[in-house]
Formats: sequence, C-alpha cells, structure tokens
Amino acid sequence: MIYVTKQMSFSASHRIYNPSLSDEENFRLFNQCANKNGHGHNFTIEVTVKGSINPLTGFVINLKELKDIMQEHLISLLDHSNLNLDIEFFKHNIPTSENIAIFAWNILEDKIKNAKLYKIKIAESNSSYVEYFGNSD
Amino acid sequence: MIYVTKQMSFSASHRIYNPSLSDEENFRLFNQCANKNGHGHNFTIEVTVKGSINPLTGFVINLKELKDIMQEHLISLLDHSNLNLDIEFFKHNIPTSENIAIFAWNILEDKIKNAKLYKIKIAESNSSYVEYFGNSD
Amino acid sequence: MIYVTKQMSFSASHRIYNPSLSDEENFRLFNQCANKNGHGHNFTIEVTVKGSINPLTGFVINLKELKDIMQEHLISLLDHSNLNLDIEFFKHNIPTSENIAIFAWNILEDKIKNAKLYKIKIAESNSSYVEYFGNSD
Amino acid sequence: MIYVTKQMSFSASHRIYNPSLSDEENFRLFNQCANKNGHGHNFTIEVTVKGSINPLTGFVINLKELKDIMQEHLISLLDHSNLNLDIEFFKHNIPTSENIAIFAWNILEDKIKNAKLYKIKIAESNSSYVEYFGNSD
Amino acid sequence: MIYVTKQMSFSASHRIYNPSLSDEENFRLFNQCANKNGHGHNFTIEVTVKGSINPLTGFVINLKELKDIMQEHLISLLDHSNLNLDIEFFKHNIPTSENIAIFAWNILEDKIKNAKLYKIKIAESNSSYVEYFGNSD
Amino acid sequence: MIYVTKQMSFSASHRIYNPSLSDEENFRLFNQCANKNGHGHNFTIEVTVKGSINPLTGFVINLKELKDIMQEHLISLLDHSNLNLDIEFFKHNIPTSENIAIFAWNILEDKIKNAKLYKIKIAESNSSYVEYFGNSD
Repeated sequence: MIYVTKQMSFSASHRIYNPSLSDEENFRLFNQCANKNGHGHNFTIEVTVKGSINPLTGFVINLKELKDIMQEHLISLLDHSNLNLDIEFFKHNIPTSENIAIFAWNILEDKIKNAKLYKIKIAESNSSYVEYFGNSD
Repeated sequence: MIYVTKQMSFSASHRIYNPSLSDEENFRLFNQCANKNGHGHNFTIEVTVKGSINPLTGFVINLKELKDIMQEHLISLLDHSNLNLDIEFFKHNIPTSENIAIFAWNILEDKIKNAKLYKIKIAESNSSYVEYFGNSD
Repeated sequence: MIYVTKQMSFSASHRIYNPSLSDEENFRLFNQCANKNGHGHNFTIEVTVKGSINPLTGFVINLKELKDIMQEHLISLLDHSNLNLDIEFFKHNIPTSENIAIFAWNILEDKIKNAKLYKIKIAESNSSYVEYFGNSD
Repeated sequence: MIYVTKQMSFSASHRIYNPSLSDEENFRLFNQCANKNGHGHNFTIEVTVKGSINPLTGFVINLKELKDIMQEHLISLLDHSNLNLDIEFFKHNIPTSENIAIFAWNILEDKIKNAKLYKIKIAESNSSYVEYFGNSD
Repeated sequence: MIYVTKQMSFSASHRIYNPSLSDEENFRLFNQCANKNGHGHNFTIEVTVKGSINPLTGFVINLKELKDIMQEHLISLLDHSNLNLDIEFFKHNIPTSENIAIFAWNILEDKIKNAKLYKIKIAESNSSYVEYFGNSD
Repeated sequence: MIYVTKQMSFSASHRIYNPSLSDEENFRLFNQCANKNGHGHNFTIEVTVKGSINPLTGFVINLKELKDIMQEHLISLLDHSNLNLDIEFFKHNIPTSENIAIFAWNILEDKIKNAKLYKIKIAESNSSYVEYFGNSD
C-alpha cells in the first residue's frame, strides 16, 4: 500500500459568520474573520489517495489524472470565487477550512478510480491547516 | 549603506475590474479576476529601507520598530479587508498588486525615521510579485 | 473527526551535552552540538488537535484561541531563551527536539478545551524534525 | 515512542516508460514523462524512524548518524545519476516515485540501528509526493 | 516605473561537460555534473519586466499574458526535455544556468509588448541561482 | 555580466546588547533580544558574485568552488557558535545581521577569484533580512 498526494491551490474570498447569531456574537466568536465585506486567502488543498502499484505503470495513480480530476470537479468551482456567495454548499455551512475539507471529500470520493481517497488537507495559510480522513476515521 | 527588509502578510479579497468599462471588456481584460463577487489572497508585503549602521545599536533600523510601523499604518487597514469596498484609495484605483505597492509607499514614506524607504514588494502568490522603488526610479 | 494544526516558531539557543559524561564522550556523541558556548535555531512547533466540528462555529477549535494558548503557555517561555539556562525542565533533561516535544506536550495537554491534543511536531531546521503523540501511542 | 525525520535531496534524471509496451501506449500512459531523452528533478527524500528516547543522549537516533547512513547507502547512488541507466533496480522497475520509495526502503531497512524504519517519503516536486510504510502497512 | 515578475518551473535533465576537453579534464572541472548519463533538476525561471502602469487596467502587464508567453515560447521547449540532446542551442553551448538565462533572454526579449524585459533568474535548486540583465548591464 | 548566488546556512546563538549602556537602556533598545543568556537562529547567508561567462566552462564561477570558499572561511567559524563569545569580531561589534554581513564581506572579498563579490545577504528568519554591497555602494 502506497499513499500518493497531489497539492493544488485556489484563491478565494470568504466571510466566517453564522447568520443565526447576532453581529455581536459573531464578532465575539470570529473577530475580524466576520468583517462584513469578507477577506481572502490563497488556499492550498492536498488530496491523498492510497492503493497498490499497478505493475504496468509503476504508479498507484497517474498524478496528471488526479490533478485533472481535482481541477475539473473542485478547483474550477473554488478558484477565484467568493465561497459564501458562489458555492451552494456554503450557503448552509460556514466556509471554514473544516467545512471546505468535508466539501472536497464529498465531491472527490467517488471520482477517483483504482485508488481510495484517504485524506483531504486544507491550508488557509502557511501556519494553519486541517486534515479530514472521511467518516470512517 | 545597508538595505534592511521586513516581510509581513495580510489576507484580503479584491475584484479586478474597471467600472468605466463594460462587463464584456472587463472579462476580456481580467478573466476570472473580474468575477462579480471577488476572490482573495494571502498577500505578502516586503518593505526595504536603506541607511547606515547606528553605532549605538548595530542596526540601520530596529526591525521591531519597522514591523510596528507597518502593522499600525498598513496591515491594520488591509488585513481581513475587502480592498475594493473597505479602502478609500481602491474606490478610485483598481486594486492590482501594482496599485497596492504605490498605496503602501505613499503611506509609509514619511513614517520611517533614520532610514530611507527604498522598495515595496507585493506578492499575490508564490509565483507573482511586483516591486516599486518610488517616483525617483 | 477532524485534525487541526497551528504552526508557530521560537528563536532559542541550546547546548546538547550530558553533564554526567566527560567532555570527550560528549563530543563523540554530539559533535559540534556540544560546543561550550552553545548555538541556536529558529525552532518551529506544530500543535495538532483532534475533535468534531462545533455546528455553531464550523470550527473544531478557533485557531486564534489555539494560538493564544500556545503563546501564553509555551512560546512566551521558549522564545528568545537559552533553553539550558532559562528553562527549569532542561536543567534535568537534555534540550533535544525530542525532549522539547515532550515538554510542550506536558504543558499543553490540559490547556486545550473542547478538543484533544493529538501531536506535537518540533523542527530544528527545514530538514530535521520529530513528532510526539503522547504516551498512549 | 517518538518519530524522527531527516530530509535530504538528490538531483537525478529519469524516463517513465514501460519497455514492454509500444511507444504509442507509453505516450498515452505517461505523456511527456515518456520523452525519449528523459528529463529530471530535484527529488526530496524524507526518512522517518520511530523509537524511544535514549536517556544517555536525549535522542531516539542521532540525526547526523541517520544522515550519514542515508548519504552512504542511498544519496551517493542516486545523486547526479540517470535512474534508468545507472541503477540496476530501475532496469527492471519503472523509476516512478512509488518505486524509488520501495528501493529506498529495501536499502535502508536493516541499516538503521536502535530505531525502526517507519516511513519513506519521495517528492518529485513541491506539489507531488508519495509515502511508503513498508509491507506491514 | 514598476517591476513585475512571474515565476514558472520546468523539469529537465542535463550534463555539464565540454566536448572539446578530455574526460579527465571534464571531471576535474565539473565533478559529478559531468556524469556520462546526465542528471536533472526542477529548474525555476523568474522573468522580470519593467514598465509604467496602464491606467485602463492598473497593470504594467497582465501576468496571465506574461505566463502565456513564457509557456508558449520557453517552457514548452524546456519542460521534460534533455537540454543537451533536445535543444539546438545547447548543442553548441554548455547547458549551465548561466547559458540557460541567456537562452531565455534571447527568446523572450522581443516577445514582450508594452513592457521591457529587465531580468532573467534561473535557479537549479533552492540554494543556487543566476541572474542576467541582458547585454546592456 | 551575470550574477551568481550561493545560499548556505548556519545555526548560531547571539545576544544583542551594547556593553557600554545600562541594562535598562539595552532592554529599551533591544527588548528580549538583550536577554541575558542569549537566544539563537538558523541564519541564512547568500553570497552573490558578478562576472562574465568563462567559455571553457559555461560558468561565471563553479558553484561548488564558491560553496567550498564559504564553508572554509565563513561557515566553519559561524556554524554551531555563540557569536558574542566565540568570534573575535563580535567582541567589539554587536552581532546584528548588519554587522554579520560586514564581517562576511570582509572575509570573503579577496578569497573569490575570477569574479567580483557583489552582495552579502543575511536572513535571521524567513521574514527579516539585510543586504550589503560593500563600501562602494
């Protein structure tokens, strides 16, 4: 069993606030992340899959194929977007890194053939990141 | 003469478009950077000053002092902001990296004592940056 | 279950030697790391916690809160210190990265609320690091 | 139990193709990675070992010793080589990152004393890497 | 006047040797870089142009346009190539970083419109790079 | 004319204080950098030389040769040292990055053959650095 990881990035804006709470409560919970007009990041996403080596290719998965799947189904949605306003899922879920990881997992899980999705890592900056291993973890 | 540089970062959203042009023209010029609801970046700013060494301290400038000036006059405005909506200057100037560099120069030029502002570098990502040396260049 | 990581850094000096051994033995074991007057590093510390998402916030833990805990209880002690001379724990334990990780774990373990401390990672340089998962591992 | 990691790098060239397949099939599977004259990378290798702390040294393993083992048995073979032409193993195994990880595991497994080899990570670039934990995983 | 830089990368192999010298002399001058079957790198190229801001766009040059020029005229040639065997220029010039910089300058100089090519930077690794400012420097 | 740069690093401790001033004045000027027992950094040094390409080699200077000069004359002194106590120059000059740059320039200037020393860059961390071009600047 070998684990293979592809990292990509997307530039997006978001606002961290809970519409069911008052503005005061939002600022107490989220500080400047709740600023009215939003802010943004260069998000990094790492997708890790696990599988055995295909003797024909020496690959678990062709990284170009993994990159194409990520680009078509995920990056094309998220890059240069406003997460809160442009992505349906984040109209009902606060667009934290945690929820972006779950969003990415749900989209990618059944798109990857011949290998099994193992981990999604979302980094909002060089010093902050989250990791999600799916429900089974 | 020695050159001293401090790097800081800020997370902001922006939309690159020219309100005096049609939507079609904006998308032709700016592609997805003109998307209606904006997007965002972790911007990096480097401020370089030049001067001679103060024999009392061995410093051209105390980097903590330079950092405090950058934080008070620049980062506090830009971090977790929507550049287009929250910063007066960018209501009249497209918030490109080039214009952010000029904005930073104009704010910092006369705030730095005992050394001379030499360069502002603004990076929107790891692979793209601009450098501005003031009008005299 | 989601894993959330915050990275911070501290600048410290240390000397790697065992006072119960001869100088010759120390140099055989530790080479230049045993130099008499010490040396130093920009250490990086990553703290990983695990927990489930709080539906009120979309966070496992507010990263600002995790950073404040790290700053107050750990970084304020270690940053700009001489580990051997300034930190009580390292008067009885050689200040290797391994022992710094255990020191950090012991300090942070019961300071983190609503999530469980999972891993401490200490990097002395870009090319060397240790990871500690607590006694249970 | 503590995990200790050393990162090193080597510059090598390789060609990804399967000699038992036609050129057409190779290009379909491997695109430009199958180009006739090969290409190259600055490969990064991370070796992680696990063990308990030696109370005499405060180390699981002396990182200088781990680095010397990696240099003598692995980097000296791979650095500034053409993997396909210069390394016997890759005359029978396509020199993908997956197979380089297995090659490194097999060489290092019994060279490390007082600690147990845990993981080999091979990165072909900043955005692509594989991880291998040995057969037992 | 503002300076704008785009960084891209390419993976290539090369062999540093001078065919007009003996093997012994080549190894004396180039060590393992002269190994017979070549080796490789992830090369980084930074292209810096200078110009004034276009008031219509807020850009000196659209970085997407600069990236497209670099991709079409330079990266498409160099990426996944063997510099010595695949690129005509390096049949008559040793493929050092210095000569790659001159090769890139000569190709790009007249392809960039509305701004002036200022610098080519070629990095063979994280710790080694060359910079070329054209003949006028 | 081409500029060639080699980056190396060294781990050292230092204390920033001026022995001719009171402790109170030292803490006002240098904050925690004046802590009595010192602290440390992984310092990065970049040495840039300029020259023309030698047609025999395609190099301005062999980077291995430049690295050997830096190692022999500079890194061997500074690495794993306490700058204040172990280096004669810093008994009379506060070991700031500015003064380390001048120290390095003075040592290296006449050691480099066939190319001219152009710049010394010293970085104390990822976010702070100084650059020195010699007296002629």
